[in-house]
Amino acid sequence: MAQINEHYRKLQAGYLFPEIGRRVREFQAAHPDAAVIRLGIGDVTLPLAPAVVEAMRDAVEGFGTAEGFHGYGPDQGYEFLVDAILEHDFRARGVELDADEVFVSDGSKQDSGNIQEIFGTDCRFAVTDPVYPVYVDTNVMAGRTGAAGKDGRYEGILYLDATEQNGFVPSPPSERVDIAYLCSPNNPTGAVSTGAQLAEWVAWARENDAVLLFDAAYDAFIQDPALPRSIYEIDGARECAIEMRSFSKRAGFTGVRCAYTVVPKALTGSTAAGERVSLRDLWARRQSTKFNGVPYVVQVAAAATYSPEGRKQCGEQVAYYMENARTLREGLGAAGFTLFGGEHAPYIWMRTPQGLSSWGCFDELLSRAHVVGTPGAGFGAAGEGYIRLSAFNSRENVEEAVARIERAFAG
Amino acid sequence: MAQINEHYRKLQAGYLFPEIGRRVREFQAAHPDAAVIRLGIGDVTLPLAPAVVEAMRDAVEGFGTAEGFHGYGPDQGYEFLVDAILEHDFRARGVELDADEVFVSDGSKQDSGNIQEIFGTDCRFAVTDPVYPVYVDTNVMAGRTGAAGKDGRYEGILYLDATEQNGFVPSPPSERVDIAYLCSPNNPTGAVSTGAQLAEWVAWARENDAVLLFDAAYDAFIQDPALPRSIYEIDGARECAIEMRSFSKRAGFTGVRCAYTVVPKALTGSTAAGERVSLRDLWARRQSTKFNGVPYVVQVAAAATYSPEGRKQCGEQVAYYMENARTLREGLGAAGFTLFGGEHAPYIWMRTPQGLSSWGCFDELLSRAHVVGTPGAGFGAAGEGYIRLSAFNSRENVEEAVARIERAFAG
Repeated sequence: MAQINEHYRKLQAGYLFPEIGRRVREFQAAHPDAAVIRLGIGDVTLPLAPAVVEAMRDAVEGFGTAEGFHGYGPDQGYEFLVDAILEHDFRARGVELDADEVFVSDGSKQDSGNIQEIFGTDCRFAVTDPVYPVYVDTNVMAGRTGAAGKDGRYEGILYLDATEQNGFVPSPPSERVDIAYLCSPNNPTGAVSTGAQLAEWVAWARENDAVLLFDAAYDAFIQDPALPRSIYEIDGARECAIEMRSFSKRAGFTGVRCAYTVVPKALTGSTAAGERVSLRDLWARRQSTKFNGVPYVVQVAAAATYSPEGRKQCGEQVAYYMENARTLREGLGAAGFTLFGGEHAPYIWMRTPQGLSSWGCFDELLSRAHVVGTPGAGFGAAGEGYIRLSAFNSRENVEEAVARIERAFAG
Repeated sequence: MAQINEHYRKLQAGYLFPEIGRRVREFQAAHPDAAVIRLGIGDVTLPLAPAVVEAMRDAVEGFGTAEGFHGYGPDQGYEFLVDAILEHDFRARGVELDADEVFVSDGSKQDSGNIQEIFGTDCRFAVTDPVYPVYVDTNVMAGRTGAAGKDGRYEGILYLDATEQNGFVPSPPSERVDIAYLCSPNNPTGAVSTGAQLAEWVAWARENDAVLLFDAAYDAFIQDPALPRSIYEIDGARECAIEMRSFSKRAGFTGVRCAYTVVPKALTGSTAAGERVSLRDLWARRQSTKFNGVPYVVQVAAAATYSPEGRKQCGEQVAYYMENARTLREGLGAAGFTLFGGEHAPYIWMRTPQGLSSWGCFDELLSRAHVVGTPGAGFGAAGEGYIRLSAFNSRENVEEAVARIERAFAG
């Protein structure tokens, strides 16, 4: 009798975004004429940068020739891409990493979901709440939690509330935790951690022999050059932190699929007997056994984002989205809504108006304004009372959404 | 203290192919002038079919426009690809499947490695031996085995020997097993299962409430139209089997990355309490949480393999490789080597000459003939005494390899 993995049955409803998709499809079926504006799922909308298209097109054409064809690639990614990553994402900010500390992948969702596999099942972990659901769900599936309570929180996880009081950046916990997931700029709150805040986490991790899983998928949206983009800008981080980065948002790659994870060689975990083991080596083994590399043409495309033209064009896309964020912030702020985030992140975290619940606000926004947001409660109990609005859309749609939301909730 | 997943420490040495890569690099460093011919890792060598290149190039160029750009795609793959799969891989052979039973992915390595996640840790599983290492290693990592013995076999796994006596197609076991991995055409032996043999497995699985994980990554190499290409050609298979297919070998996609897995809705597993649960729903939840889809342009490329030109061109590639297989089989056979496979698969399974061990033969082939094979023992204890030769190379290289191997072991 093939028994199933019963931990899956602890999972709450569907994964957030499919559930949103379902509600939107239902609404559209009932109101085929409604021009729905999607500020829900954080999906980019601008076409790919010309420099990226050209590089990828040439690589595709090369695949039709003996010289340009590529079969299986190197496990951790092509040297040309890894070198560009090291140079532009790290060396340019004073961080020196080795090539074999970088693992090119097909997405930060995958990496942040898979990374828990190299840790023991008994590890206790912390997440900030609200939180990107993948961190939690993948640990539930792996049996690292108990059942969910009425508030949707799983037994065994330490939830650190991100609140208006702490500026949505919780401090390290005082109780014992082995692993902590951090995300800055934050999805969903749009909050960003300062160097001092990250340093506090690094000091805590080193003191407690804990590992930080640092998701920096939105690093490109940081506007203030003084804010850290990588956790390795903090002294001592390479002894306690794994970092995940993505091309999805910084270069419009949600449908192209490329990301990478850094696991420094200085970083170790422990066996039950106390022996120290390289986490880089475990991750290398995981990836070489369960992954087969990112398409060559996609790696060429990712490398093109670092060319002078690629950087300029991708930078303009980020600026476009950040102008959308400003439009949302200022427009809805002027209309009396209470908003957070959107300064160094493409997300606005809005307090729900009129005392609505998160899902109530989602439904009202959809039915009254034909605007899709993401219910804060979908990201955790502490997200209740908020809704996330994404800056990924056209300027016209964002302006129209502001006007519609204002009208829908007027008076 | 962040404890590691100690199951990883049970794994034997490195994953097979990186180890081969290491030995070849060492040899090349010591003998820079040697023209090494690689018949080791099963990697395609012909350029991508023109119809596929054209379709992918157009899709890439479309990404530079508002109309042609695509962000996140549907969880299980684009309808245009799933429809083509249903039509050409199944309906054309009399098998009707629903679109939501097909899950497009970035590789059969990933799918065959990840599929075990939806089963309980206590499930007992069987593999044929020799076996594609991913099936075993991913279960070791998940804690479904004990330690490895001296022969490299892990405690808790039932190994079914594929031998010359049973034509390298083992029968179902008499002892209790919950899950069985099957691969036909087989990697590494090149053996293919007949309809009667698959029917025996299906009957066994249904009788024992077991699940078959059927890896058909090499289906396109089957030359006899009477042989089943899908396990769903066998009555009752959709109640007991998951099937994995890949574009890697049939269309030269090893560096393009596309595959798919079929999980029929009729297929269920059981909870400890005996409740039946849809495995399709578990896999859908797994994929929607831990995967983010295949690049749009890659799905367009995969769909192009089903166009009239695409089918013709990909068919010619398969024929080219199969002619290589014939060259290996006949050339080495005439020279007195004992060989198996290569008739419905791109792999030749050769008995090692002169009583050499598998790795001994690997080293001798490399140093004396400058030819890379894959040691049979790398695929399991029952592979000892064999070496796998791949037909994926140019005709000249294959002919040259035959001549060199013959000379190297002459007398």
